[in-house]
Amino acid sequence: MSFKPAFGKFARFTAPIRRFGASNSARTAVLALGLAAVTAYTVPELQRVAGSWLSACLWSCLGYFAIDSGARAHAAIQAGRGWSHIFSVSAFIDLLGVVAVPIALLCGVQSTTAWLLASFWVLKLAQDSPGFAQLQRVFVVEAKALASVFALFLIVLFLSSAAMYLIERAAQPNAFSSMPQALWWAVVTLTTTGYGDKVPITYLGRLIGGIVMICGIATFGLSTGILATGFAAETRRRNFIRTWDLVGKVPFFQSLDPAAIADITHMLRLLEVPERTAIIRRGKVGDCMYFIASGEVQVDVKPSPVRLGAGAFFGELALLGDSVRSANVTTTTASSLLILDLADFRTLTANHPDLRRAIDEEGQRRMNENIQRRERQPAGGTYSA
Amino acid sequence: MSFKPAFGKFARFTAPIRRFGASNSARTAVLALGLAAVTAYTVPELQRVAGSWLSACLWSCLGYFAIDSGARAHAAIQAGRGWSHIFSVSAFIDLLGVVAVPIALLCGVQSTTAWLLASFWVLKLAQDSPGFAQLQRVFVVEAKALASVFALFLIVLFLSSAAMYLIERAAQPNAFSSMPQALWWAVVTLTTTGYGDKVPITYLGRLIGGIVMICGIATFGLSTGILATGFAAETRRRNFIRTWDLVGKVPFFQSLDPAAIADITHMLRLLEVPERTAIIRRGKVGDCMYFIASGEVQVDVKPSPVRLGAGAFFGELALLGDSVRSANVTTTTASSLLILDLADFRTLTANHPDLRRAIDEEGQRRMNENIQRRERQPAGGTYSA
Amino acid sequence: MSFKPAFGKFARFTAPIRRFGASNSARTAVLALGLAAVTAYTVPELQRVAGSWLSACLWSCLGYFAIDSGARAHAAIQAGRGWSHIFSVSAFIDLLGVVAVPIALLCGVQSTTAWLLASFWVLKLAQDSPGFAQLQRVFVVEAKALASVFALFLIVLFLSSAAMYLIERAAQPNAFSSMPQALWWAVVTLTTTGYGDKVPITYLGRLIGGIVMICGIATFGLSTGILATGFAAETRRRNFIRTWDLVGKVPFFQSLDPAAIADITHMLRLLEVPERTAIIRRGKVGDCMYFIASGEVQVDVKPSPVRLGAGAFFGELALLGDSVRSANVTTTTASSLLILDLADFRTLTANHPDLRRAIDEEGQRRMNENIQRRERQPAGGTYSA
Amino acid sequence: MSFKPAFGKFARFTAPIRRFGASNSARTAVLALGLAAVTAYTVPELQRVAGSWLSACLWSCLGYFAIDSGARAHAAIQAGRGWSHIFSVSAFIDLLGVVAVPIALLCGVQSTTAWLLASFWVLKLAQDSPGFAQLQRVFVVEAKALASVFALFLIVLFLSSAAMYLIERAAQPNAFSSMPQALWWAVVTLTTTGYGDKVPITYLGRLIGGIVMICGIATFGLSTGILATGFAAETRRRNFIRTWDLVGKVPFFQSLDPAAIADITHMLRLLEVPERTAIIRRGKVGDCMYFIASGEVQVDVKPSPVRLGAGAFFGELALLGDSVRSANVTTTTASSLLILDLADFRTLTANHPDLRRAIDEEGQRRMNENIQRRERQPAGGTYSA
Repeated sequence: MSFKPAFGKFARFTAPIRRFGASNSARTAVLALGLAAVTAYTVPELQRVAGSWLSACLWSCLGYFAIDSGARAHAAIQAGRGWSHIFSVSAFIDLLGVVAVPIALLCGVQSTTAWLLASFWVLKLAQDSPGFAQLQRVFVVEAKALASVFALFLIVLFLSSAAMYLIERAAQPNAFSSMPQALWWAVVTLTTTGYGDKVPITYLGRLIGGIVMICGIATFGLSTGILATGFAAETRRRNFIRTWDLVGKVPFFQSLDPAAIADITHMLRLLEVPERTAIIRRGKVGDCMYFIASGEVQVDVKPSPVRLGAGAFFGELALLGDSVRSANVTTTTASSLLILDLADFRTLTANHPDLRRAIDEEGQRRMNENIQRRERQPAGGTYSA
Repeated sequence: MSFKPAFGKFARFTAPIRRFGASNSARTAVLALGLAAVTAYTVPELQRVAGSWLSACLWSCLGYFAIDSGARAHAAIQAGRGWSHIFSVSAFIDLLGVVAVPIALLCGVQSTTAWLLASFWVLKLAQDSPGFAQLQRVFVVEAKALASVFALFLIVLFLSSAAMYLIERAAQPNAFSSMPQALWWAVVTLTTTGYGDKVPITYLGRLIGGIVMICGIATFGLSTGILATGFAAETRRRNFIRTWDLVGKVPFFQSLDPAAIADITHMLRLLEVPERTAIIRRGKVGDCMYFIASGEVQVDVKPSPVRLGAGAFFGELALLGDSVRSANVTTTTASSLLILDLADFRTLTANHPDLRRAIDEEGQRRMNENIQRRERQPAGGTYSA
Repeated sequence: MSFKPAFGKFARFTAPIRRFGASNSARTAVLALGLAAVTAYTVPELQRVAGSWLSACLWSCLGYFAIDSGARAHAAIQAGRGWSHIFSVSAFIDLLGVVAVPIALLCGVQSTTAWLLASFWVLKLAQDSPGFAQLQRVFVVEAKALASVFALFLIVLFLSSAAMYLIERAAQPNAFSSMPQALWWAVVTLTTTGYGDKVPITYLGRLIGGIVMICGIATFGLSTGILATGFAAETRRRNFIRTWDLVGKVPFFQSLDPAAIADITHMLRLLEVPERTAIIRRGKVGDCMYFIASGEVQVDVKPSPVRLGAGAFFGELALLGDSVRSANVTTTTASSLLILDLADFRTLTANHPDLRRAIDEEGQRRMNENIQRRERQPAGGTYSA
Repeated sequence: MSFKPAFGKFARFTAPIRRFGASNSARTAVLALGLAAVTAYTVPELQRVAGSWLSACLWSCLGYFAIDSGARAHAAIQAGRGWSHIFSVSAFIDLLGVVAVPIALLCGVQSTTAWLLASFWVLKLAQDSPGFAQLQRVFVVEAKALASVFALFLIVLFLSSAAMYLIERAAQPNAFSSMPQALWWAVVTLTTTGYGDKVPITYLGRLIGGIVMICGIATFGLSTGILATGFAAETRRRNFIRTWDLVGKVPFFQSLDPAAIADITHMLRLLEVPERTAIIRRGKVGDCMYFIASGEVQVDVKPSPVRLGAGAFFGELALLGDSVRSANVTTTTASSLLILDLADFRTLTANHPDLRRAIDEEGQRRMNENIQRRERQPAGGTYSA
């Protein structure tokens, strides 16, 4: 009995398992399991009762991540991105998750402590996430402003600590015995955490404490203001970029002049929908229309459903007249839809009357087609949702 | 004596009570009473002293909610929305409020514990509230961004817990005896709650504690930035949609070109006013004008008051010349008013001179009419407020 | 010796004192003194040592506020606003500050307790403050959105309390003995205050505690988002209204078309300056120009200073060429200035080339005038700062 | 042996050291060292073990700051800004850092206490920082609004303290023995710090406590809203001003009409890059293009790198077609670059088709040049990154 056919059989047999194992859901589930096991492993009672089970679970997770990391590296090399993958943060997180614990164990670190290094698995949450890239960009763009707030934070921290140490050390020789103690009080107070393990008791100390707390509110306010400003700009920017390329794929918009396209791109919102997902439910109140950038949807009209492909639009009837959806719409494949909100639709059609006319004409065309389809049944049916 | 006439008499007799009982004020009052009773019922002293009274009160509230839920279901079925009502969140909240406690009591749960389930009544605050729908939409639209912040939160949480457990367990074997203990410390610190039940005491532990607190500020800032961005967009969007339909009902705006209508729709703010409510008080400084989308108002001018119906506008005199209101204006029926702010009025009339001219002409017309009315007293009177 | 001349003499003699006494600084000083005395009066040691002094101080403040309130009421009656004053919140605050303590003392309340009522004096901070009116408007306009967040707050509060009471009462029969105790824990946690007087100790309780804290961050974020959105809109609106009337007084803008005036009104910022205050200091880097809406300024140019009255502008040289201020500018009387920022100046002149030309021409005219003035010294001098 | 040549030799020998010593990195490092030494000096154990080392370190830092302050004053005098420097905040901070400790020591203050005054060194973080100037402007512009929020804060603080003192003093005679004690509770609660050293225990006290916490959220929200609004406006304004002057230096923009220049100035973002820094890395996805306002960059194209000077642009290929960068770009000297984001590029070229044409033509020109360069190797090479 040769080895290859047996392996082929095995490969065929395990294909669905492997496909599932490589899915995001599986990774997330293993991640959750692994972190839970890491946590549980540090509880003495649980370790006594179920130590070997937890250990097995941890090793399994480690194994899974090793295979997963290998597969990702393999895929990157196949795609010719080998070197750029190796030096990426993502690959480093993969590596850390796989080798940290074994190395620690080999170095003779006690197993309870060594498995704590598996906490680095939590970093996988940040891997390849577009949302993280966005947050990171906000921090990069606003770095200078945030640094100024942090400097302000440090100034208040240090001066208030020195003052507090001077004022309170006589009254509370233990709690404020040195600057590091006072600094700890200051950071706990300035961030408005307020553990209460060190509290000023003199009048002057409390006055300074109150000022530090108010500075804390200002610190919160400034950093929030900076992050909010940066985040709003970044969201606008990112949405525009993601939408722009897709707008070009919708023939409907191609007749518009460039300024109108830029306008509409600012208004559209991208929605990625997996296959077989309901987008519109009949009878619900509609407040947006959809353009199909890629993929396909099925409109459940009588007598037989109609399919709309990339470039088509649907859901416009709810914006033009009656606001109740007249048919169910479901994706047949994973699709990218561009959503145009009711409010934006109105602003847009008010400023670009030709756009309104084009939508009306398309609606009319569908209506006519519809009548013809009904006449040559069973192929016909209204299909504007 | 037949049953039907007696019931009819009873129905007539109790009509006002039933009408009041179905009002929002009654629901809110019963809700407040019920929640207060649930709270009081758990206090041993109160239960001993007034246990039966509280019990009666709780059962009454439950009865009220049962009748109210039934009435709502009945109304939904009458309106042909039976099925969609049954599967709605609102109906589930109604059901939960009615059946949870009886089922628990039937299952033999102790009465003090069973009545705790009446806490679900508080969910009625969220039922059919447009504000909640708005908040929910903000969370849905910003879901990805919030998920990224939450992932960041989890990463900081887990890594800092592991570090803290490693660092502090020697110094405080009780407080940081395991990862779950350290996780509790981390969540209390990262949200800047700071109970103070677990506090790092080593230098390194406090350094990490300080970093976690600063991460807490960043988490606050990012989530606030996301929610603020989302909320501002949603408010603009919602106001536009609510206003747009009403703008169409004001003949005054129909002469404008679509772009101007879109402009003005962004500026108007909708105000729903109950009947017999004062809108303008004579002598106050005015900073907005009103368009009546639906309903009717009465302008208290001498010699006799004038009524203005849907499509009319008032309060424009304060924007054109003198800023003091010259007459009281009160609604006669529940009305929908569109408010145009002074600042927006000026921007608008600057960009659309024809609008200014139309308002001036209308004012002139009223003035003339006024003079005529005064001549043929007692029917006349100025009525621009 | 008749009474009237003696009173006249007294009135003349005390006029400056009375004028100072009616000033805002005096009111604020008396308010600070009064509140400090109220605070000090409750400290047993201070009362023992300086009780009569504090008492005298409190009575003096009360006397001052009585005279001040009377003067304000008198002024209101003189101005024909008597009735509207009497029913105003401001008059109520005045009244409360004067009569609350005496009434309490007459009713036999102990003096330490009675003087606590003088705490109402702090409300005078809110009297007649335009900033407060602005904050109030934000709360009014955003009332519905804030109510939704508050309802969310109540739902989380109540459900988490019920859950916590159920979970923790066995483990901590004292801390979580009833729902009110659990509610107190929930409000302390949900606002992220975190006293630490009640802390969950079971695993499940801590899980719920963590969720409540995260809900607390969401509550913070939502309410901040709402208030920030409302505040930004209100600031824009208020600035426009305050600026608009003044823009009309500057002849320079009158040649512009209405749309340009609306544009410029959005950009200008109002600055109220008391008399004899430096606005521009020679040698500083300038990043804005000023239009005088009312009042007068003095430009300290050689050989003799020049005065510019309402309608004039200054400081434009720093925007046109060299950015360093070339002369000191000081107000001679209380003035209202409209500030045009460098960034807005550039945007504005880019969009309205005629405006740029007008400013250039005016500058040229001044330069020429300047040369002529120098020729017929000592009256001449450059006066563009 | 004469003194002068020896000094010259010494000056030449120490030039690099002095240059490094005057750099920002050196100042920051000394600052960090100094503050660490100040902190360590207050810890009794460290003082006992390494007191003389710490003392030496502190004196060295003081010496460094003395020399540095002198050099700065000298430079200011050289530049003719002597007087304005002497009266600046920056000079005061320099002076305070140098003389505070020696004066204290001369006055006979104990050395541990005297060195606490070296905490003022932390103020050097704020010296000459543009970010601080920006934060300061936000506080100045929003001063009135922040004052209103602070007044609201004081009102809630004082009224709640009075109420709490009244309610809790019977139940907790020690914790709430006087108004100052209650004020401390109020400030700790209103800022949501929540030490837990004073906690209400009566029902009424807890109700008021809850209200104060909710007011705390409102205070946070309002001040954050104000600061966020102010910060967003200030950021926009500052970016415009910094960018405007540089836009004039790029010949490419000079052909545009002023309105388009104002538009583009709002979109560009300034980036100051030190010498020999990578700006674009080959193979990365590009989402912006760069204009060189000043400085020079090197494009690493084959066969030999090309240098681009002030006025040139690069990185546009990623915006026009393929989004992957085709070459590394590095600065050769410290440069000011203007970044135009992909989203803004598209909006801009949509509204100004001539701009798009100009960029295309320039690209075409480069391509042709490129071909010619390749033909006459080794001087040629594509250099559009």
